[in-house]
Amino acid sequence: MATKSFLTSFLLFSLSPLTGRYAMVVCGDIAVYATGNARSTGGAGAVAMLVGPNSPLVLERGLRGTHMENVYDFYKPDLASEYPVVDGKLSIQCYLRALDRCYAFYRKKIQNQWKQAGIERQFTLDDFQFMIFHTPFCKLVQKSVARLVFNDFLSAKTDEQNNRYKGLEAFRDLKLEDTYFNKEVEKAFQKASLDVFNQKTKSSLNLSTLNGNMYTSSLYGCLASLLSQHTPQQLAGARIGAFSYGSGLAASLFSIRVSQDASPGSPLDKLVSSVSDLPKRLASRKRMSPEEFSEVMSQREKYSHEVNFSPPGDTNSLFPGTWYLERVDELYRRKYARRPL
Amino acid sequence: MATKSFLTSFLLFSLSPLTGRYAMVVCGDIAVYATGNARSTGGAGAVAMLVGPNSPLVLERGLRGTHMENVYDFYKPDLASEYPVVDGKLSIQCYLRALDRCYAFYRKKIQNQWKQAGIERQFTLDDFQFMIFHTPFCKLVQKSVARLVFNDFLSAKTDEQNNRYKGLEAFRDLKLEDTYFNKEVEKAFQKASLDVFNQKTKSSLNLSTLNGNMYTSSLYGCLASLLSQHTPQQLAGARIGAFSYGSGLAASLFSIRVSQDASPGSPLDKLVSSVSDLPKRLASRKRMSPEEFSEVMSQREKYSHEVNFSPPGDTNSLFPGTWYLERVDELYRRKYARRPL
Repeated sequence: MATKSFLTSFLLFSLSPLTGRYAMVVCGDIAVYATGNARSTGGAGAVAMLVGPNSPLVLERGLRGTHMENVYDFYKPDLASEYPVVDGKLSIQCYLRALDRCYAFYRKKIQNQWKQAGIERQFTLDDFQFMIFHTPFCKLVQKSVARLVFNDFLSAKTDEQNNRYKGLEAFRDLKLEDTYFNKEVEKAFQKASLDVFNQKTKSSLNLSTLNGNMYTSSLYGCLASLLSQHTPQQLAGARIGAFSYGSGLAASLFSIRVSQDASPGSPLDKLVSSVSDLPKRLASRKRMSPEEFSEVMSQREKYSHEVNFSPPGDTNSLFPGTWYLERVDELYRRKYARRPL
Repeated sequence: MATKSFLTSFLLFSLSPLTGRYAMVVCGDIAVYATGNARSTGGAGAVAMLVGPNSPLVLERGLRGTHMENVYDFYKPDLASEYPVVDGKLSIQCYLRALDRCYAFYRKKIQNQWKQAGIERQFTLDDFQFMIFHTPFCKLVQKSVARLVFNDFLSAKTDEQNNRYKGLEAFRDLKLEDTYFNKEVEKAFQKASLDVFNQKTKSSLNLSTLNGNMYTSSLYGCLASLLSQHTPQQLAGARIGAFSYGSGLAASLFSIRVSQDASPGSPLDKLVSSVSDLPKRLASRKRMSPEEFSEVMSQREKYSHEVNFSPPGDTNSLFPGTWYLERVDELYRRKYARRPL
């Protein structure tokens, strides 16, 4: 939904002179899991984005690669529980397949645009200065970068395969759809793509590493993370590839072009400044033991459908200005209060 | 959500030459209530609309009046139940207040458009040849037509109040916000607006009368009903006022202009033909006693969160081509089957 709102807002502004207007896209989620392996990947977060004219980040038009399937990879069927049902293996396969398909569509579209401009060549990851991903857990993103390099490798000409992808020739005849769980491919291409990962993607994972999964806002959290880890000069003119994924599933790969102007006071400079305090804000969080977290989760389970109650918990520990649930009355009506700023 | 999709689709097509493309808006809902007064107002239905170029119905641009409030008038907080919590009196007040506000915004906008074209006059219900409404129950819609005439009356000049609205002068100094439950106003203006209701709105309620509430698709069901009850000639050139309301609440009043061309084979002729079988389709439904309906509802309650089961019920009674839920497996995964066409 975040990506849908984001893309629709961009589309509206690119099509029409909606003078003086802005759209605001707010995406947020709480990723919690039942006790077990997945619980430690959870997290929570929200991202708010202003979409409008003169933006230092511009969606590139006509280049969206989209793939959808009706699949039960991750879903919340038990409405009495906050926890999802996850088919972990299927979910990873779905994610990687969607990535393959979206990348193929994206490349086809950009190569067509280039062709019309008289340029006849293959699109590769080299053409993205940065690449951000929906991030259920960071390891999957590293695998995804490897996967895209594997895609590039399979579409490369034989001589290029021999020169540029030295030592990978053995994988030449494999098919994408047969290799979702091929450990050799994974290992070889993770190694071959390590520099690419470090240069183009790693900085976007800083937030996910420290904060866990954010579901809906995941990709846009990665964008904020990327911006917070670079200077305007490092970002200026870059094309950022972005892969959005929602279970169920709907996925899109699109690209964002960063403006050239990185001078002090430029829109890009202001945007980068606005997220520069991200590491500091993350560092200001309160550390809690897994036991305390489990206790909070048990309370959450217990109270999630309660009426006529006020949630327990010390509101003094909340950041200044935080809105919190004060009371749920007998008709489930929720009343919120705010910590003083 | 139906209205949001509908308006967004229109906006996209009106802004840009998306040659050869169409948007499809599908809206549907099941309106069921716990045992009690409201149960008999329930219903179910879906409407699919194709949005694209050369449409015989065109959204009028720049004329949307919108009103939103954060209010608990109708909501589904108990996720273990399909039934809503309804504050009936509050809900009616919210609906009527939203109608007042949206109508005021709409009139302001159209009067501004007219002014720019050199026309200086008040907009009244006379300027809508038809008027359709979100329809929780038909009586509320009749009240709403009366309400709009009351709005027109309050904004009319004194001499017009004396001439056109004879016998209503006693209500001249009332304020909209004080009269949501004023029985005298309701009665007097229902009487004064009876002809308007019969001419502009009654035919749009044919579906709701026979089918009950459809929630999300309600307004668009009224549009289909209106189209099915008139000839292309009767509709040609008309401006249809449309009031969309979603509890919680978000409401919009906008208008649709019907094309002038009502000739055989015209887009308008085709559209009207496509819904002309609505009365026949409604008549082909199977009649069921309230006791049988209650029994089906009890089953629905019992099975709505069940896993590893196949719903009971005779699939032979379904219309040819109907999709139905065949099985829910142990992981809540749903499998659908289809009756032969």
